[in-house]
Amino acid sequence: MTKAELIQQIRLKESYLCVGLDTDESKIPAHLLSAADPVFEFNKSIIDATLDYCVAYKINTAFYEANGLRGWQSMEKTVNYIPSTHLKIADAKRGDIGNTATQYAKAFFDTMAFDAITVAPYMGRDSIKPFLEYKNKWTIVLGLTSNSGARDFEMLKYDDEYLFEKVMRAVAGWGNSENLMFVVGATQTDLFERIRNLIPSHFFLVPGIGAQGGSLAVISQKAKNVDVGLLVNSSRAIIYASGETDFAEQAKQVAKDYQAEMKMYI
Amino acid sequence: MTKAELIQQIRLKESYLCVGLDTDESKIPAHLLSAADPVFEFNKSIIDATLDYCVAYKINTAFYEANGLRGWQSMEKTVNYIPSTHLKIADAKRGDIGNTATQYAKAFFDTMAFDAITVAPYMGRDSIKPFLEYKNKWTIVLGLTSNSGARDFEMLKYDDEYLFEKVMRAVAGWGNSENLMFVVGATQTDLFERIRNLIPSHFFLVPGIGAQGGSLAVISQKAKNVDVGLLVNSSRAIIYASGETDFAEQAKQVAKDYQAEMKMYI
Repeated sequence: MTKAELIQQIRLKESYLCVGLDTDESKIPAHLLSAADPVFEFNKSIIDATLDYCVAYKINTAFYEANGLRGWQSMEKTVNYIPSTHLKIADAKRGDIGNTATQYAKAFFDTMAFDAITVAPYMGRDSIKPFLEYKNKWTIVLGLTSNSGARDFEMLKYDDEYLFEKVMRAVAGWGNSENLMFVVGATQTDLFERIRNLIPSHFFLVPGIGAQGGSLAVISQKAKNVDVGLLVNSSRAIIYASGETDFAEQAKQVAKDYQAEMKMYI
Repeated sequence: MTKAELIQQIRLKESYLCVGLDTDESKIPAHLLSAADPVFEFNKSIIDATLDYCVAYKINTAFYEANGLRGWQSMEKTVNYIPSTHLKIADAKRGDIGNTATQYAKAFFDTMAFDAITVAPYMGRDSIKPFLEYKNKWTIVLGLTSNSGARDFEMLKYDDEYLFEKVMRAVAGWGNSENLMFVVGATQTDLFERIRNLIPSHFFLVPGIGAQGGSLAVISQKAKNVDVGLLVNSSRAIIYASGETDFAEQAKQVAKDYQAEMKMYI
């Protein structure tokens, strides 16, 4: 998916919502557990219910890997089920030396049909470059994350700059706003304007609203750019809105509420 | 596997060699390609041939994920084939917020039978803690890596300290030398003594000899400690020693040569 196509979808739906499929088998409603692949059945219902209110789906690979071979199968089926109108993000946070990064890029962009993958920056340029070489694919590099551990290293200060700022500035030079996004956690509201000033034209993937407590209003106000420039992710608040047979309907309602709020900010 | 058991194996075999199973299907000898699972057949032969000369196997998950479901199956079969005398390392470089890290730990320590996993430190404490909570399992955190990109962020200098030193010092306080190791690249010979002084008692997993050009002699001299304290990995130099029908025999010879050299340094 190109940047123009993504922006077109955002304008069309008046939404920049990304639905996070962090599907934990132990949290799936009981009536689905007799299905051949409960995780896929759950995801299918969530996708059907939320499709009109979001522009992206983010599959958190950890939750699938935890189920082993079976989980990998659920992931492949899920990514194939997401329609081509929606950006398919593998939230995989991979990162390794060049020849290994090439294999990860192959795994998520060739073997599986993802449009985008999250990547960790610690190992530097040759760990990120192989992903950027794919045409019409997106590399989403960790900038400032939403968790408490962000303070341990990402927020170390060098001179007047945080480590995550040095990272974002350097990485921005390795790609462009057509193939590169950054993860910026929704809980980091104090720094959002500073980050948008540093990186004016790239999309940010923003996790951390809902269960983690970030505010959609504040993020939107501080970090929207001329292209909207945001994909705001909610996982648990949507997919676990209900643990009963009405889970899809309730998920739809939460997604719809987010979309209605986003429409006001666009 | 406990630290005492690992040291016992090192003393018994007079080796601290780790064989890296970065098995690329496109590099497997032609006569194996008709097997039901060529990658597993290849790994099985490599393991049988090198078992007596090494104490650990490191499975680089990227090479398996590149083959999708089929690759995940080859990985599961391979880890189950490695005998319990050898440390089974998932070179997965995972790293995510706490609830997701818990799922990765489950994937590699419960669902699959790995003893150890490599983990990226960028996201801080809550991304590492869930791995450390497993008894008799090892978390191997990236310190200073062997690739050219190590200079981009890992070697940023804060005051008199590199970022990777700040990382290693902080992470060392979250675990102990019984459940925590660090990755230190073999190509970083100038810094090896300094790193060993900073982290005296932990094991280092050292990739980068062989294809990447690091020297076994220099590493051993500069970073061995009273427990040996090193697992030196070689992947390509062993597993691709020959691309013909004699690949296992040639792999055995290279592993045997490494063991003979290591015996001198112990």
